[in-house]
Amino acid sequence: MPANVPDIVIGRLPVYLRALEHLLKGGHEITSSQELGEQLGYSAAQIRKDLSFFGEFGKQGTGYRISHLAQELRKILHVDREWPVVLVGVGALGHALVRYGGFKPKGFTIVSAFDSDASKVGQRVGALVVQDMDKLASEIARIGAQIAIIATPAATAQEVANTLAKAGIQAILNYAPISITVPKGVRVQYVDPALLMQRLTYYL
Amino acid sequence: MPANVPDIVIGRLPVYLRALEHLLKGGHEITSSQELGEQLGYSAAQIRKDLSFFGEFGKQGTGYRISHLAQELRKILHVDREWPVVLVGVGALGHALVRYGGFKPKGFTIVSAFDSDASKVGQRVGALVVQDMDKLASEIARIGAQIAIIATPAATAQEVANTLAKAGIQAILNYAPISITVPKGVRVQYVDPALLMQRLTYYL
Repeated sequence: MPANVPDIVIGRLPVYLRALEHLLKGGHEITSSQELGEQLGYSAAQIRKDLSFFGEFGKQGTGYRISHLAQELRKILHVDREWPVVLVGVGALGHALVRYGGFKPKGFTIVSAFDSDASKVGQRVGALVVQDMDKLASEIARIGAQIAIIATPAATAQEVANTLAKAGIQAILNYAPISITVPKGVRVQYVDPALLMQRLTYYL
Repeated sequence: MPANVPDIVIGRLPVYLRALEHLLKGGHEITSSQELGEQLGYSAAQIRKDLSFFGEFGKQGTGYRISHLAQELRKILHVDREWPVVLVGVGALGHALVRYGGFKPKGFTIVSAFDSDASKVGQRVGALVVQDMDKLASEIARIGAQIAIIATPAATAQEVANTLAKAGIQAILNYAPISITVPKGVRVQYVDPALLMQRLTYYL
């Protein structure tokens, strides 16, 4: 993997991939940085520059073969495989996440769910049975999971993050509305719908 | 509001605002584009350029007064007020959204919740009572709501978006894992956690 690709560029690759998959579904075979850019609100130059970190994907004047570029992006993003994901926190949000239809097509499957509330342990959620937090570390080791979702209240998110990091988790999707600190080598992405709303109100 | 600010710039302003609020909570009073940039992974030049669309917020060499810059960003983003928000779809996700603690501090309050499932209508969710979809348009008019959240299954999201747009909603936060088409003048933000996950797997 190429060194020193800015994180902001990495953040755009899944957006490109989603647009390409959308074009494929619509029956398109070829696209251009121009066309992609218009769809996404980026400049064509930006898209070409972002992709150039990883090689040459199109021929001058003929554009990109969509299925090829999509497959290359999947390889770059390491989503050309299935990732098992561990969920911590099985409240209303956790339930929604287990049932969420958007993970599977992108290569993510929630394979275990944990909660510290003894009354929830043993309950079924979709195809899963909620497990006790005591089992978290051994389950992560057994599965070989590297990705976890925190869907706990804000007050316990940091403690959960500590446990996850200690158990070998390297990537955390955090839904708790609080900043968490993790050891070097562990990455956190925040899901913050209020931030997306603030982007909308600008236009109101 | 200044014309032709790229949407991508608007998208970064809430991120700056969050970082500033975080610094304020930590007791800081002054910051710089350098410091903000280091925290967020943007260049100082990028931050200065983004802010320059809206005026002069810092003095050369002395940095930004955090509380002032935060307040200006709130004005620019129109989040220096309370926004009533309408929720459509009261499944597990809808429940989680009503209980979500991250909206209120940013100026958003879910004031009405709707579902097409007759068995859910009349149920309490937090402080709300689920209403029938029949009431959606009149409720939106009564409240004067401009913002809605779609938390329905993918199959009904487009129909809901049509109804919302017709009722005068101008900003939609869409949780359904599907692209929706809206009339000109209506904006959609997608909440796509799988996209954020793909950004994490790059580093695994």
